[in-house]
Amino acid sequence: MNTLGATIEEVAQGQVRIAAEVTPATGQQQGFGHAGLTFSLADSAAGYAALTTLGSEWEVVTSEFRISLLAPARGRLIATGRVVRPGRRLIAVAADVHGADGAHVATALGTMVPVPAT
Amino acid sequence: MNTLGATIEEVAQGQVRIAAEVTPATGQQQGFGHAGLTFSLADSAAGYAALTTLGSEWEVVTSEFRISLLAPARGRLIATGRVVRPGRRLIAVAADVHGADGAHVATALGTMVPVPAT
Amino acid sequence: MNTLGATIEEVAQGQVRIAAEVTPATGQQQGFGHAGLTFSLADSAAGYAALTTLGSEWEVVTSEFRISLLAPARGRLIATGRVVRPGRRLIAVAADVHGADGAHVATALGTMVPVPAT
Amino acid sequence: MNTLGATIEEVAQGQVRIAAEVTPATGQQQGFGHAGLTFSLADSAAGYAALTTLGSEWEVVTSEFRISLLAPARGRLIATGRVVRPGRRLIAVAADVHGADGAHVATALGTMVPVPAT
Repeated sequence: MNTLGATIEEVAQGQVRIAAEVTPATGQQQGFGHAGLTFSLADSAAGYAALTTLGSEWEVVTSEFRISLLAPARGRLIATGRVVRPGRRLIAVAADVHGADGAHVATALGTMVPVPAT
Repeated sequence: MNTLGATIEEVAQGQVRIAAEVTPATGQQQGFGHAGLTFSLADSAAGYAALTTLGSEWEVVTSEFRISLLAPARGRLIATGRVVRPGRRLIAVAADVHGADGAHVATALGTMVPVPAT
Repeated sequence: MNTLGATIEEVAQGQVRIAAEVTPATGQQQGFGHAGLTFSLADSAAGYAALTTLGSEWEVVTSEFRISLLAPARGRLIATGRVVRPGRRLIAVAADVHGADGAHVATALGTMVPVPAT
Repeated sequence: MNTLGATIEEVAQGQVRIAAEVTPATGQQQGFGHAGLTFSLADSAAGYAALTTLGSEWEVVTSEFRISLLAPARGRLIATGRVVRPGRRLIAVAADVHGADGAHVATALGTMVPVPAT
């Protein structure tokens, strides 16, 4: 979250919105293609959303994640993660990433698994 | 690739292997969870594999990517990308990430789209 | 569509809703598990939705499809397909399947490819 | 399995091969597009493979499944399912479908969840 410059914008039950600035400079410093950055934002938002359905003694790990990259990731990105179906064994999640201009940058579905917090 | 400390280990027709060291320090500097790092390695390896099927006037962009995270990402990671089905419109790709100890860290399927090189 | 007993309920630009009755008897006659039936409904709805963005000289084929099965498929199922991003080379689609009781049976993301109608 | 005309060809620990004939007539009787048929074969093979890692008091349900359709499904199809990572909570699986002529018809990754047998 730090390196991404990501901040949590909103936390509701089962839904979390985070934001990050993706400047050309950041892109180069990272050495990441946009797919990796966008994935990380979507995965983080979805993971935080999953956490809102669990007690503080739990963390989550990503079991699998499937992302469609729909438009170039530029400027300020807003990633919204949400819980599609809560559960004790696995949590179905979704995430969408939009640009500040409203562009639909990515959409994703994934599975989070609760694990005891360390 | 630079920030990941990733290096290309082997390039064959339709298959590319890259490697990177994932130290705890790197993880923290990145601010990425392991899912994002592992995704980036798998996506990069698959993208390079797709490029080996195209002329130098082409680049590829990731259309969609689906990764299963099977084991913790630790130490030196080796990502092998391969072309499942070449094509002019879209290229089906796969990738696997293993640890230096042989652990199967991740497996992935994705779709790359050729675009004219800029 | 015939064997599924599926009917088209609503067609709008970029969105199509189809419905089918999944009785225990049907399930046994088909020899399909519910995953296959639910997949077929979701895939069909998404494919029809993609068709609404194309001229009549085009068909679509499914390039890849990813479905999460969230609840048992029982009784009357309603599958809603929608276009996430239109395109000439590939069309990003999504689908959701609900039960008559409102249960969220499945959610899906996929990629359709336009091909000339035969 | 019955309606598909599917037969189990080989069962090994963590791997199962099933086969089915996909004739034009079958396709029409089913009212299924090839995506649904191919999905059902791949999903079944992967589910059976998952079962080989569990005691007889367990069944599996598909949690999510992602299939890439690589070539037209015609004639005799052979679906090979295999366990990528066994587990008590979830089982990572993969499947490939080939034609009798060796064509790579589909490749898939999925997640199976063990549930008590009824």
